[in-house]
Amino acid sequence: MTLSTSGQQNSSSIRIQDAFWNKFTELVRDTVIPYQWEALNDRIPGAEPSYAIRNFRIAAGLEEGEFGGMVFQDSDVAKWLEAVGYSLANHPDPELERTADEVIELIAKAQHENGYLNTYYTIKEPGGQWTNLHEAHELYCAGHMMEAAVAYYEATGKRRLLEVMCRFADYMESVFGREPGKLRGYDGHQEIELALVKLYGATGEERYLKLAQFFIDERGTEPNFLVEECRQRDGYSHWAKKKLPIPTAEQMAYNQAHKPVRQQDTAVGHSVRAVYMYTAMADLARLTGDAELLEACRRLWDNTTKKQMYITGGIGSTHHGEAFSFDYDLPNDTVYAETCASIGLIFFARRMLQLEAKSEYADVLERALYNNVIGSMSQDGKHYFYVNPLEVWPKASEQNPGRHHVKAVRQPWFGCSCCPPNVARLLSSLNDYIYSASAGENTVYTHLFIGSEASFKLAAGQVALKQESRLPWEGCARFELTAVPEAPVTLALRIPSWSGGRAELRINGAAEAYEVENGYAVVTRRWTAGDVVEWAPALQAQLTAAHPEIRANAGRAVIERGPLVYCLEETDNGSPLASLSIRPDTPLGSEYVTDLLGGAVVIEAEGFREEQDSWQADTPYRPLAVRRPAEPVKLKAVPYYLWGNRQPGEMTVWIRTQGQ
Amino acid sequence: MTLSTSGQQNSSSIRIQDAFWNKFTELVRDTVIPYQWEALNDRIPGAEPSYAIRNFRIAAGLEEGEFGGMVFQDSDVAKWLEAVGYSLANHPDPELERTADEVIELIAKAQHENGYLNTYYTIKEPGGQWTNLHEAHELYCAGHMMEAAVAYYEATGKRRLLEVMCRFADYMESVFGREPGKLRGYDGHQEIELALVKLYGATGEERYLKLAQFFIDERGTEPNFLVEECRQRDGYSHWAKKKLPIPTAEQMAYNQAHKPVRQQDTAVGHSVRAVYMYTAMADLARLTGDAELLEACRRLWDNTTKKQMYITGGIGSTHHGEAFSFDYDLPNDTVYAETCASIGLIFFARRMLQLEAKSEYADVLERALYNNVIGSMSQDGKHYFYVNPLEVWPKASEQNPGRHHVKAVRQPWFGCSCCPPNVARLLSSLNDYIYSASAGENTVYTHLFIGSEASFKLAAGQVALKQESRLPWEGCARFELTAVPEAPVTLALRIPSWSGGRAELRINGAAEAYEVENGYAVVTRRWTAGDVVEWAPALQAQLTAAHPEIRANAGRAVIERGPLVYCLEETDNGSPLASLSIRPDTPLGSEYVTDLLGGAVVIEAEGFREEQDSWQADTPYRPLAVRRPAEPVKLKAVPYYLWGNRQPGEMTVWIRTQGQ
Repeated sequence: MTLSTSGQQNSSSIRIQDAFWNKFTELVRDTVIPYQWEALNDRIPGAEPSYAIRNFRIAAGLEEGEFGGMVFQDSDVAKWLEAVGYSLANHPDPELERTADEVIELIAKAQHENGYLNTYYTIKEPGGQWTNLHEAHELYCAGHMMEAAVAYYEATGKRRLLEVMCRFADYMESVFGREPGKLRGYDGHQEIELALVKLYGATGEERYLKLAQFFIDERGTEPNFLVEECRQRDGYSHWAKKKLPIPTAEQMAYNQAHKPVRQQDTAVGHSVRAVYMYTAMADLARLTGDAELLEACRRLWDNTTKKQMYITGGIGSTHHGEAFSFDYDLPNDTVYAETCASIGLIFFARRMLQLEAKSEYADVLERALYNNVIGSMSQDGKHYFYVNPLEVWPKASEQNPGRHHVKAVRQPWFGCSCCPPNVARLLSSLNDYIYSASAGENTVYTHLFIGSEASFKLAAGQVALKQESRLPWEGCARFELTAVPEAPVTLALRIPSWSGGRAELRINGAAEAYEVENGYAVVTRRWTAGDVVEWAPALQAQLTAAHPEIRANAGRAVIERGPLVYCLEETDNGSPLASLSIRPDTPLGSEYVTDLLGGAVVIEAEGFREEQDSWQADTPYRPLAVRRPAEPVKLKAVPYYLWGNRQPGEMTVWIRTQGQ
Repeated sequence: MTLSTSGQQNSSSIRIQDAFWNKFTELVRDTVIPYQWEALNDRIPGAEPSYAIRNFRIAAGLEEGEFGGMVFQDSDVAKWLEAVGYSLANHPDPELERTADEVIELIAKAQHENGYLNTYYTIKEPGGQWTNLHEAHELYCAGHMMEAAVAYYEATGKRRLLEVMCRFADYMESVFGREPGKLRGYDGHQEIELALVKLYGATGEERYLKLAQFFIDERGTEPNFLVEECRQRDGYSHWAKKKLPIPTAEQMAYNQAHKPVRQQDTAVGHSVRAVYMYTAMADLARLTGDAELLEACRRLWDNTTKKQMYITGGIGSTHHGEAFSFDYDLPNDTVYAETCASIGLIFFARRMLQLEAKSEYADVLERALYNNVIGSMSQDGKHYFYVNPLEVWPKASEQNPGRHHVKAVRQPWFGCSCCPPNVARLLSSLNDYIYSASAGENTVYTHLFIGSEASFKLAAGQVALKQESRLPWEGCARFELTAVPEAPVTLALRIPSWSGGRAELRINGAAEAYEVENGYAVVTRRWTAGDVVEWAPALQAQLTAAHPEIRANAGRAVIERGPLVYCLEETDNGSPLASLSIRPDTPLGSEYVTDLLGGAVVIEAEGFREEQDSWQADTPYRPLAVRRPAEPVKLKAVPYYLWGNRQPGEMTVWIRTQGQ
């Protein structure tokens, strides 16, 4: 199929109008973006200060003071601006746009004469530029600002920030490269690569694509740039604030720089870095037709999603380095599953869908979106999980230091606040994830069932459609074609993995057979404006088991219903949740409850609770033979994304199963 | 009952002669003590150097050099000497005694004129004495050397080291106390308290008992000494090598100094510190009749053993600070359960038995001894676990940083090598743990069933007996009274918790009824020399369950047989072990296998393995409904203490149970 050069070009032609998602997009627009603006300006009482805007003011010479926050603090402003861009595209707001314009002017003022832009190195370590790519996130921050520039430009047509970032990219080209005197290096935290691809998409300037490719191609080659750079610094570490032993190339696995990217086949190291890199690799494979890169993307996708992904779409199972550990090591309680990592996985999935429309990519995208990502944000939009556990015992989170990183309650903001603005930019650009179009093949793919109005320019002409969806509560989406060309057009509707392949298609009220291609129901015909396509993938609550190699889930099952993973909370089921179990064949009753956190389908089932009355409090162990039968109880499960919005307490996704 | 002033006075009158234990005591004598001597002298190829003897040579002025090892390195020499003392008591060895005498002369040479003794402060920080009791273990090292001095004196009658340590204790008296100009303080790592009690026992000098009591009484009072001392140092930390914020009194919970010991009721902080302190508290409660202290001991015993103890007798569930976490938090995989902590628990249990002969103390003592402690040492006596896990996945130990502290293979020696010499001193003094005697009440208690010859001085006269035992393989112990007084004497035989209270007594071949007092079968009569008492507590393999609040063990059971906890190893049962399950009512077959690591009873049972063939390698999750039945398999369990002595692999103590 013919592929588009940028993923953004359709964004303004797709608008979400959806009973489930409207509240999230409105929350982002009405609460999260304003709240984060306050946070960036250090005006949230009781929350850790961000310093992010203040840093730009100081760098711009408008204020005196010290740099504050993390070395990558600039990226929070960038992510906020990017979210603002998407939000403005969908929902004009002159006041917000004026605020953004002011921020952009501030950023422009902080830019150096030569194009360089980074408040940390401007304020705190002038002259230290490009000496610690390993740790100091200079290109990472630049990448986020480029993404913001593109989003803002595409939303408003305003080029100011785009030009600032093009100047920076042009300057980068003079710094990095294989020519003598240039740095043959790359950033310790990938992000610039995917951002340069976006800059290329927005400007058509091929040199930005080439620079992205340079960074990807150099990564992990010998001699290892990050190791050599560390040697140049005599081992000095920004984070340790002292000299450390020079790391080996193998240790650069944390940064996915232990070997060339085309030779990598296992997801290793810091999970956000990994998926941002995979995203760029997929972009480049698509835009350059690099088959070797595509193969690497497929291998890394498989390893990430089939061996190292939680059922919630979370990735990265250890908080030590916020990293992947190894295949099937997916502990539920000492989990990491960082919000940003799932967002990066969604980016990667979307790029893989652009490369090849296979439903498995969208299945994972949907899983991460409906569970890990939206679960990270409180219903008020002001509190966030950074770590998204599948099992919480609040007392352990407080009193067992190995679980301090797992919070039982969402936090107002973070010293290292990467996650909240990342959620905001994803949710405010969600319209970009619903469809993709193959113009040359006159095909419109529907990946997500989210109510929306969309139009696509195909070779055959313009197609416009209106989707109405009852997801995630019912398996039912209705498409009305509002504009169609004369020539045949293919509609490809994803057959979700949760439907078990059972999905009914009706066209203008009549049941229709369909062919299946790569997990999509495919219908090619000449359409008439007003045609109605109804799509009903089977959506029912079911128990799901984990691969036996995932030891943490042995003898346990999870309740899933459509795209939603469910969990048990103490507030509904008492404590300890570990005492509860369920029979594999128990019917799962679904009921939509309007008064639960804005309305949700709750699942009730017969279960069992290990009895505790016959235990003496001072008997830790006793013969199993004296046990009494478990007591029948009614289990109540709520969608995972809603957990922790009522009374704090235990939560578990995986439930013990009884019998075989 | 009348209580003895020292627990040591009978030690030379009890000799172990036991099929099971001889190999351990011989291993300690023939291998561990010589091997540790080599280690203390830095002569083990491939192992981390100890520096311990070298430090003494430098401090004694016999060698030039820098201090090496931990600040508490002296204690390794002390623990070795203590083990040598016990070993010589049971098994004279002129060459070993000569070596020990030389070490003692070396130690004496390293002692300061005023009695002070510590190689770290002599070599590395002269003048810094008593400025960092919080971190620097000065009194801890002194305490271990006092224990060595007492053991060596009691074994050999030689007073050299005893006098060295009395001089140090006398000097301590001039440093610590409530009088003006003295330090009103105590050590950051408890040990001196129990050691001073031993020094009192060996010398009869009451001032040593009073000094022990001073340390116990001052601990945790306000103003908090450790906090104030830290303030005096301006926050400088030995471990961090820089100034840190002044801690709060609450943070001194790590050192059990957050409140006065009599007000403590929950085991908190570093687990070894805790149980060493509880040991001294029980000593003092016994020797001073302090009822409030006794109550605190009972409360802390209850909390430690009934809410925070693993089934193996391990305590301390987090490696962060090698510490207790909180009630019922007993994860099997991220466990700590340090060997030294279980040894300290055994010390505590023994002191509680001396206070009040209740079988629950001996039950815990036996549990920790037969499982956690002997399991920490390899069958060759040269490799040790510091952490004693209940579940091991070797790949996770290597690749998940949160489990790096859990080793899948015993290590040759440690930089911080507290555990191996602690095992040696416990096993070489095991004869002291079998019996206790109440001279005034003419009662001999048998706590452990370990073949031995013993004699006791009671008010009624001398009693001598010979115990033969088939424990742990059969529930059968035979006592022959070889010397008896004319007056009646009470034999009190422990009814082990694992017998479920079913135990048969025969005297001279005839079944005999008995009364039960505090978990002991009690028989009072006039005995005749040659009388034979046979004691047969019911010993059979059974499944044991954990209290429902111990979430880690929900839906799981452990195989126990007599005092032994069993485990499954990958080498016998394949991988993943988490796929295995067992029915609650499955018969457990016991068979003594001679060729398994010196002979052991192995347990076989019908179990089930979750089938894996129908899973595709690339399917992490699938509907539970498509599962196939678990396959019947033969499970093979081996005693926990033997795990990790064959091929490295997975191990689990807790096994999933099927059905209710």
